[in-house]
Amino acid sequence: MNDSYSALLDAVAFDADGLVPAIVQDADTDQVLMMAYMTADTLRETLDRGQMVYWSRSRQARWVKGQTSGHTQAVEEVRLDCDGDTLLFKVRQEGGACHTGYRSCFYRRVEGNTLHTDGDKVFDPDAVYDDA
Amino acid sequence: MNDSYSALLDAVAFDADGLVPAIVQDADTDQVLMMAYMTADTLRETLDRGQMVYWSRSRQARWVKGQTSGHTQAVEEVRLDCDGDTLLFKVRQEGGACHTGYRSCFYRRVEGNTLHTDGDKVFDPDAVYDDA
Repeated sequence: MNDSYSALLDAVAFDADGLVPAIVQDADTDQVLMMAYMTADTLRETLDRGQMVYWSRSRQARWVKGQTSGHTQAVEEVRLDCDGDTLLFKVRQEGGACHTGYRSCFYRRVEGNTLHTDGDKVFDPDAVYDDA
Repeated sequence: MNDSYSALLDAVAFDADGLVPAIVQDADTDQVLMMAYMTADTLRETLDRGQMVYWSRSRQARWVKGQTSGHTQAVEEVRLDCDGDTLLFKVRQEGGACHTGYRSCFYRRVEGNTLHTDGDKVFDPDAVYDDA
């Protein structure tokens, strides 16, 4: 048992499923890249490695960001909000954060009653993921 | 029934409780100010007013941001992520986003095994909230 993160882990209010949302921001540009969820274990692993590790709610499995794609996220800064139920990470993003090939998952902007795609496509998902 | 937002509302994947998380970013500085939740109704109201309106999970009630404090958030931009389960808003924040008086709710930074407070305190909550 590693107690090196007890201050943070004691302050995090994990939800009924044992998860906490993590907002991920580009350390250079402050662009919001994605949001995903962590368990206490994947939070500890993230801090140990200095690389983002999540919990996939759809696959119910640990998810090392960039393991398949190479698009890793190195942790630069970790923040906690006032009521402890949301984390904010600043990261150095390799390639793109989004599995669709965009730099950020938030590549769709609301414009009147349309969703306008205006993100930067930085890789071809067909070339990166076997199942894409 | 207002259909002006059908493109967005059809694309949002609300969770089992009918909620979607909304990340809120300062339109000028790109600082992440807070995260809170919206129902379909408070999302519609946010778009109608051009001011952030949330759903408080703890109070199970609609929550017009700034109604008590005056610290309103005018909507500048609305984005949706790849799988439709997270919203990102850029806003013009009056005063502070956090009920504790800080500009951002993420005023605590992890530093080794401590949580270091380094946010900007922009108001005195005792002077703003009756119950603070």
